[in-house]
Amino acid sequence: MTETWATSGSLGIDLHLDPATGPGLRRGLTDSLREAVRTGRLAPGTRLPSSRSLAADLGIARNTVAEAYADLVAEGWLTARQGSGTRVAEGRAMPPTGTAPRRRERPRPVYDLVPGTPDLASFPRAEWLKAARRALTAAPHDALGYGDPRGRTELRTALAGYLARARGVRADPERIVVCAGFTHGLGLLGAVLRARGLRTVTVESYGLEVHWNLLAAAGLGTVPLPFDELGTDPAGLTGPGAVLLTPAHQFPMGDALHRDRRAAVLDWARRTGGVILEDDYDGEFRYDRQSVGALQGLDPDHVVYLGTASKALAPGLRLAWLVLPPGLVEEVTRAKGGADTCGSFDQLTLAEFIGSGAYDRHLRAARLRYRRRRDALVSALATRAPQVRVTGIAAGLHAVLRLPPGTEPSVVQAATWQGLALNGLSFFRHEAARTEPVDALVVGYGTPPDHAWAGALEALARVLP
Amino acid sequence: MTETWATSGSLGIDLHLDPATGPGLRRGLTDSLREAVRTGRLAPGTRLPSSRSLAADLGIARNTVAEAYADLVAEGWLTARQGSGTRVAEGRAMPPTGTAPRRRERPRPVYDLVPGTPDLASFPRAEWLKAARRALTAAPHDALGYGDPRGRTELRTALAGYLARARGVRADPERIVVCAGFTHGLGLLGAVLRARGLRTVTVESYGLEVHWNLLAAAGLGTVPLPFDELGTDPAGLTGPGAVLLTPAHQFPMGDALHRDRRAAVLDWARRTGGVILEDDYDGEFRYDRQSVGALQGLDPDHVVYLGTASKALAPGLRLAWLVLPPGLVEEVTRAKGGADTCGSFDQLTLAEFIGSGAYDRHLRAARLRYRRRRDALVSALATRAPQVRVTGIAAGLHAVLRLPPGTEPSVVQAATWQGLALNGLSFFRHEAARTEPVDALVVGYGTPPDHAWAGALEALARVLP
Repeated sequence: MTETWATSGSLGIDLHLDPATGPGLRRGLTDSLREAVRTGRLAPGTRLPSSRSLAADLGIARNTVAEAYADLVAEGWLTARQGSGTRVAEGRAMPPTGTAPRRRERPRPVYDLVPGTPDLASFPRAEWLKAARRALTAAPHDALGYGDPRGRTELRTALAGYLARARGVRADPERIVVCAGFTHGLGLLGAVLRARGLRTVTVESYGLEVHWNLLAAAGLGTVPLPFDELGTDPAGLTGPGAVLLTPAHQFPMGDALHRDRRAAVLDWARRTGGVILEDDYDGEFRYDRQSVGALQGLDPDHVVYLGTASKALAPGLRLAWLVLPPGLVEEVTRAKGGADTCGSFDQLTLAEFIGSGAYDRHLRAARLRYRRRRDALVSALATRAPQVRVTGIAAGLHAVLRLPPGTEPSVVQAATWQGLALNGLSFFRHEAARTEPVDALVVGYGTPPDHAWAGALEALARVLP
Repeated sequence: MTETWATSGSLGIDLHLDPATGPGLRRGLTDSLREAVRTGRLAPGTRLPSSRSLAADLGIARNTVAEAYADLVAEGWLTARQGSGTRVAEGRAMPPTGTAPRRRERPRPVYDLVPGTPDLASFPRAEWLKAARRALTAAPHDALGYGDPRGRTELRTALAGYLARARGVRADPERIVVCAGFTHGLGLLGAVLRARGLRTVTVESYGLEVHWNLLAAAGLGTVPLPFDELGTDPAGLTGPGAVLLTPAHQFPMGDALHRDRRAAVLDWARRTGGVILEDDYDGEFRYDRQSVGALQGLDPDHVVYLGTASKALAPGLRLAWLVLPPGLVEEVTRAKGGADTCGSFDQLTLAEFIGSGAYDRHLRAARLRYRRRRDALVSALATRAPQVRVTGIAAGLHAVLRLPPGTEPSVVQAATWQGLALNGLSFFRHEAARTEPVDALVVGYGTPPDHAWAGALEALARVLP
């Protein structure tokens, strides 16, 4: 249900773009164009606009368009000839029913520096399987049946203890709702807030389009707060409503919400009865100083805490959690539907994983690994690209590399040619943000396996100015 | 998002009832009443209508209301005194914020004969863990990342082979979408059909309210087909649209869709471009004759096949699958959101479980177990309640016990007093059904563990006329 439509003047049709991060947007565009050709909305022989002009129309990177075109040429839907541009192939519209469009796997980039996925090669498979065996062996029979829509009580209890200890969250298992990843949780909150009559949610100037689109799918517009040298500025919060923030580690800029501004947001929520949605996506990963505690711990009646296993363990688990103010529990549980939507086996296993101490051990090892990578990144840049300033590195799994003004698009393009998947900062900028655009790269250092990190750094250094 | 409102004239307020099967409906009513007291919509001292009159208002069983009242008396929200009826307790409205309503676990019935859950005690834990170990050990790293929204390719491939072999489904992995249980899949289809402009879906006179409510939540009304001595009669299908059927084993009546009527439904779909939603919830369990193949195999362009692991393995897995006509794949995938919502570990494990033959072995053992129970049920009834006719026993995990006219409510009530959880047939009757009501019990024989089956039968025999 998370979708958005983009109108392209140069193409003369509407394109249906799924909200998604980088690779997803490209795939959405590819699917959308393929569908337009398949159904005949783009007639055979039609000349497509240049990738530059379609990109400008859609407000997306030119690269994304060029890659979607290349995909569809490879699939035979489009033809590209020197001098005559890109055209819809003849005789391909309306293939016989009985053939679903095949999704072609794109060739992978050599190095993936898109933030958001941890190092999957270091997932503790053996430890996880041990925990699974203990958990499934000990589980009562009813753990295999239809469950509490809030999720398994074993996991909610383990999370309440862990979050209190590690993140300062004031959590009661009765107020935790397990969900199938962060996006599922945000979607539930969007539905509940919309049902309460909200029309917009305040967000940050920088963030993930997929989140804004999820809220849009729930019928909620997004209005960005200003962003200045101190970070996100909540002074603009006035009337009652809801705000989505990344207080421990602004995504993607990388700073913690300034102390005075933390106080200001809480003050706003208390004065107006507002709700703060605290996206604590990587709160576990902090390197240089004391962990920044969750905002929720300061006011559990006004803050919804959103945490996830996607960064600390693996997105494939599809496990995230909401810690809710008392007044929201019933509504969110109802929005989740009559039954649990998350498999109980992984919930029981994660509870056992946390309870046995394996989660803490895994996090300690991961913190060390990512810190080493960050240090290598910083030192490589100091040598190879001394004019590039690195910021946002006290925590998390990504860094922001400040570039000379005007160079971001060409550096991103050069990176693609070098087999590097990464995003420029503009990819994360809300379209309504009034903050002065900054040229920068967002470099995720979580995804590549350890053995590939030196090569990734070398390739990155080559494309930097 | 699956919700419905029921207005009670005798209570003077609207009640919010979650769609759910028996125990869920009771909990929904309990939650709803508790909320009404908590928020003051039902003032302290207010006298509640009798359970009989509220039940009549809401069109639900009197038992359900009586049990909800008893729950809330136990929790202290209501008081019940001889002679003064049930009243809202004094001084309990608006408890201080900071306390979420606790869900009290109800004492379990001694024997659970509500259909829908298999014998969880016979879930093959050891075999499953072995498959999990093999699957997770062999999985590529990217299996732990964000996945294809249709689900893991390993599982879709295994299902395509299995469904073709066991159910005659013409399945291509590209047209399979894995979802988090049947209700998730039906919700996705509801959203897609509504987006295509449908306003109603045709259903059967007998079925599950939770399914009708799911469609209602998607904005789709439900119109029941007539039901006669040959079963569901599709003659009423006229214009284009969609119909939800249980062709292999009508739920809960238990017969396969009559041969002529299978042909008539397919003919309707072809003539009008209609869509048949085939709920094949327990197609694996057939005892006395050749398995009834899936309707989908006869016309994969007009039938959506819905299957689930909830009956064959365990609902706690939250795994089900849609096999879609080519034209629906993109829309359903889009409705599912940008990413997979099912954990990849269980998907990989189920693929391995099917591929290794463990699934077939488990099903053979389960078929034998349930068949023995069914035989014991039939023979116990022949001896202890010869006037009760048993129907719908050729397949599945439940039977229909025909009762003398007018006795259903008292038998259901007597069963509750005996610690038996079961539903009368009227519980499964669509409110708009024009079929003559029939007094009967629907007895699930899947849920109790083997050792409890004799006791359950004995308790059942005691309450039958």
